[in-house]
Amino acid sequence: MQNCFRAGVRGSSLLKRFGLVSGYCAQTIEDMDSKCLFRSSPMKEAQPRSSPFIIGVAGGSASGKSTVCEKIMENLREYNLEIAEKKVVHISQDSFYRDLKESEKEKAEKGLYNFDHPDAFDMELMEKCLKDISEGKSTRIPQYDFKTNSRIRDKFTNVLAFETDVILIEGILVFYQPKVREMFNMKMFVETDADTRLAKRVIKDTEDLGRNIDQVLHHYINFVKPAYEEFCMPTKKFADVIIPRGADNKIAMSLISLHINNLLTSPQKDRRLSLVMDPRRRHVSDTSNMYDVPNRKDLMDVLTRPH
Amino acid sequence: MQNCFRAGVRGSSLLKRFGLVSGYCAQTIEDMDSKCLFRSSPMKEAQPRSSPFIIGVAGGSASGKSTVCEKIMENLREYNLEIAEKKVVHISQDSFYRDLKESEKEKAEKGLYNFDHPDAFDMELMEKCLKDISEGKSTRIPQYDFKTNSRIRDKFTNVLAFETDVILIEGILVFYQPKVREMFNMKMFVETDADTRLAKRVIKDTEDLGRNIDQVLHHYINFVKPAYEEFCMPTKKFADVIIPRGADNKIAMSLISLHINNLLTSPQKDRRLSLVMDPRRRHVSDTSNMYDVPNRKDLMDVLTRPH
Amino acid sequence: MQNCFRAGVRGSSLLKRFGLVSGYCAQTIEDMDSKCLFRSSPMKEAQPRSSPFIIGVAGGSASGKSTVCEKIMENLREYNLEIAEKKVVHISQDSFYRDLKESEKEKAEKGLYNFDHPDAFDMELMEKCLKDISEGKSTRIPQYDFKTNSRIRDKFTNVLAFETDVILIEGILVFYQPKVREMFNMKMFVETDADTRLAKRVIKDTEDLGRNIDQVLHHYINFVKPAYEEFCMPTKKFADVIIPRGADNKIAMSLISLHINNLLTSPQKDRRLSLVMDPRRRHVSDTSNMYDVPNRKDLMDVLTRPH
Amino acid sequence: MQNCFRAGVRGSSLLKRFGLVSGYCAQTIEDMDSKCLFRSSPMKEAQPRSSPFIIGVAGGSASGKSTVCEKIMENLREYNLEIAEKKVVHISQDSFYRDLKESEKEKAEKGLYNFDHPDAFDMELMEKCLKDISEGKSTRIPQYDFKTNSRIRDKFTNVLAFETDVILIEGILVFYQPKVREMFNMKMFVETDADTRLAKRVIKDTEDLGRNIDQVLHHYINFVKPAYEEFCMPTKKFADVIIPRGADNKIAMSLISLHINNLLTSPQKDRRLSLVMDPRRRHVSDTSNMYDVPNRKDLMDVLTRPH
Repeated sequence: MQNCFRAGVRGSSLLKRFGLVSGYCAQTIEDMDSKCLFRSSPMKEAQPRSSPFIIGVAGGSASGKSTVCEKIMENLREYNLEIAEKKVVHISQDSFYRDLKESEKEKAEKGLYNFDHPDAFDMELMEKCLKDISEGKSTRIPQYDFKTNSRIRDKFTNVLAFETDVILIEGILVFYQPKVREMFNMKMFVETDADTRLAKRVIKDTEDLGRNIDQVLHHYINFVKPAYEEFCMPTKKFADVIIPRGADNKIAMSLISLHINNLLTSPQKDRRLSLVMDPRRRHVSDTSNMYDVPNRKDLMDVLTRPH
Repeated sequence: MQNCFRAGVRGSSLLKRFGLVSGYCAQTIEDMDSKCLFRSSPMKEAQPRSSPFIIGVAGGSASGKSTVCEKIMENLREYNLEIAEKKVVHISQDSFYRDLKESEKEKAEKGLYNFDHPDAFDMELMEKCLKDISEGKSTRIPQYDFKTNSRIRDKFTNVLAFETDVILIEGILVFYQPKVREMFNMKMFVETDADTRLAKRVIKDTEDLGRNIDQVLHHYINFVKPAYEEFCMPTKKFADVIIPRGADNKIAMSLISLHINNLLTSPQKDRRLSLVMDPRRRHVSDTSNMYDVPNRKDLMDVLTRPH
Repeated sequence: MQNCFRAGVRGSSLLKRFGLVSGYCAQTIEDMDSKCLFRSSPMKEAQPRSSPFIIGVAGGSASGKSTVCEKIMENLREYNLEIAEKKVVHISQDSFYRDLKESEKEKAEKGLYNFDHPDAFDMELMEKCLKDISEGKSTRIPQYDFKTNSRIRDKFTNVLAFETDVILIEGILVFYQPKVREMFNMKMFVETDADTRLAKRVIKDTEDLGRNIDQVLHHYINFVKPAYEEFCMPTKKFADVIIPRGADNKIAMSLISLHINNLLTSPQKDRRLSLVMDPRRRHVSDTSNMYDVPNRKDLMDVLTRPH
Repeated sequence: MQNCFRAGVRGSSLLKRFGLVSGYCAQTIEDMDSKCLFRSSPMKEAQPRSSPFIIGVAGGSASGKSTVCEKIMENLREYNLEIAEKKVVHISQDSFYRDLKESEKEKAEKGLYNFDHPDAFDMELMEKCLKDISEGKSTRIPQYDFKTNSRIRDKFTNVLAFETDVILIEGILVFYQPKVREMFNMKMFVETDADTRLAKRVIKDTEDLGRNIDQVLHHYINFVKPAYEEFCMPTKKFADVIIPRGADNKIAMSLISLHINNLLTSPQKDRRLSLVMDPRRRHVSDTSNMYDVPNRKDLMDVLTRPH
């Protein structure tokens, strides 16, 4: 226990007695104790091999999430090409889109399907894959075909347990499910102003996808914006680190890249410093202690969504 | 239809074609047409007597909601004591607190019951009472005893249909239920900074209620704050008018008071201008078109709450 | 003094002792007393004729400010065409744009001049015109030619003292100058989300002004957005009433329209209720008590701006 | 140039042509080029010894800034006591409080001096000290006596150039001056909700400083809150990383601690990866490119402040 953060800082202890440390929820003494980040020995025994360090990257559409992840991967390859390619896996939540039903496909073709809604994703499968990873098991990530709006049969990205040290998983709703949130060792939220995100989206969609401006704005106002405000933005409170300005924020990307590089390259005895953050403990800021009980099921079963 | 807002303003019509007017939701042409506020004749026929003008006032704990309402009532009494006392009814959502179960009462006595949570209220009864009012029927509002945490038996505040012209109903969660929201002719949100609200609460609770500062802060951080952020704040988007600074905002209170006074005193032919706003149409900003479907039931049945 | 808001509401008096009522600044007893809104007799004597009721309407570019004002004017004309046309004046801050210098005109032609910056306006002239109006004097408002980026010589809109009862003045920066702010009897801020504003702007500029999407986004990101965040948004705190969703918010526009109509049509003895709000007292929320001292000069003389 | 971030990510290049990358300001090609973070060789030559890595930590009063820094220091000492004590210096902006004049001291004794205002600090001295540090020169930091509200004569904390590798400087207004901002290699903003900050402040001030609750609230509402909103909060936009929840956010503190540890312990050839971020280039998000020109002097000379 000697590696725990010591609680001797004045003021903090005063606050603890009525739960202020938690930010949100009353905490029992047991909870407090278990929040120590550096508990190498007990975990070592339980885990003959460390499970990968899982970083969740959330943020609104066109916030720069995927560019942030791509640039981090680029940095890592620059530092050490071989290690980066072998030991780091970058997963997009898009891989977990559901096969659409026929009626949904028709809507999607007319631009009337809301791909930013939780119901568009196979959340259970994402949870299962991440659970495998966090338990040190190999898993396979599906691949999605946006032309047919369905999964590509028999095509997967394999994540091999014995090779992978770091997982970067990004998507608008990766912090939406409490059980998934719990598996992240670090949660980053890429925060980009709503108007900047719309501007980026307009360029991307008109130029790359050849849509006309009316379609783009219609889709943004009717689907992207309300889904962001209802489902994505409220998950910002779960973030450990907020990255302003997305992919233009080179310093934050460098900080994260170097951290990952450190995880990958440090000798085993130093790596414990960071790798053994306990991913199974619920984060102190997690208000779901309070409101997300098992039978809520992430609201998945109770929200009817407009698809 | 000649009393409708004319849609001839340039720009606005451009926006309509992809739903921007709604702020949130795709609208059909029918929806658009039915949003006219001033349709006196058809409504007149359906309603031999106008139903009362219902004003909902939401806002966080200690935001100044009830003081705002009290000052409005004061103003109205100054303008015309008799009319104000007779024709205006001020209802607090607190009247609709549920009878607590024994186990909940025990918690409440220890300060461990969350009175800011939707489940603390008898939302169905509030909806029923407001429905009566909006249909021009008399109704009776229960009275709550905070000492016993239960309703006072056989004691009610009667709201008489033939006398009441204006209803002011205020509470932290009066915009929480879609069906209740629809009944409001005007929705105001009193917006006061979180730190100012806490400061007011600290004073009120330590001086008036004799609590010690530790208890007050504990209760605020563990119950008031998370319930505000989870349930009250998200309803701000339904407001027609946002009143900053609460009861210190004399100009906004004067605006509202004069509006009500106008409703009360203007001759019948002028009153239609304002009274006949159709309270049954869903407001354009109401995202619940999208997400609050009947089987969601306001999340009432799916959220387990910490009481 | 009997028309004053009585201060007898419990709680509020508690707060006063350490200045909470002010929201921001310590207030002396004298300040408090002078905040009474309805002091008909003393003002009556000083002003043989009531000065007009001045409503300031601020908000970001494409927030819907001018549409809000146009719709209010439309409503007023529907209520009573003659009175509306004669007694209500709608002024846009755009009328107070400065004559551009040659070098600035060149920039403007290339889309490189920032028309959203305080320095683009003749703030002194706007202050002078509003001062005339608030003192019951006639004044003349310049007219601006956006093709030549200069004022139209010898062309003015006359505001006649003896005819005008209500002034609506709207613009992105009408709350920027403390002395102008003080002259408003009511301050409204039209609050529309940044992405919605950009969407509206994109449509307006591409369709109406024939600009291409690249130009529009460039201009928005480089000029409109930073000027809004630096100069306009911080003035929201001075608003008495916040109008969400701009011109789609029919209920707020109806509230304001009816208030103005009431000012215009009520018999003289009732009108005092609202007309005599003292426009010369600084508003309680005005933090400029604290930081905007005379030698600050609104920062006008110290900020060098990019034109 | 091969160490630069490659700009090959699709989408980003599209955005660059109208300045979207910058978030705020039009950028010339030269600017873009110079934003590369890893330019080891040219800087190496100019700097025979790397200047320290300077981390600025801003945030509101009671946001947890200093606890964050203390816990980081604690972590570092746990990792390697000797290196942490020798090579890392933790500076508080409080060290740069000005000597108060007699009249100001009298105010301070009555709790009427605003220590949260920029004018309370000797900003020039802070700039000079940080400039020394960033140029690899030794400097000395004054020490402040809060009992006498003046600097302790002839007492300094020495920062030795040849020993110091990392500087942590924290304070409410460390991002306020553009020239100081430019010297930071990394800028963190500790973001804690206003009500949580007030709650912490109430506990700290009543228990530790023995003040009564009225004094504490009075001081907060009249000095701390307006100064935060006017001067501190607007500097959040300069942050590279936003740390939510202050000292309760163990994961963010661990991230930063490990980053610093990496800087301190990595062999020279690896260290360049992070140490050579060019501290002299203005950060892309810095809107002061646009508005903070030299003759603005940070508004220091034009704002009269209430002390």
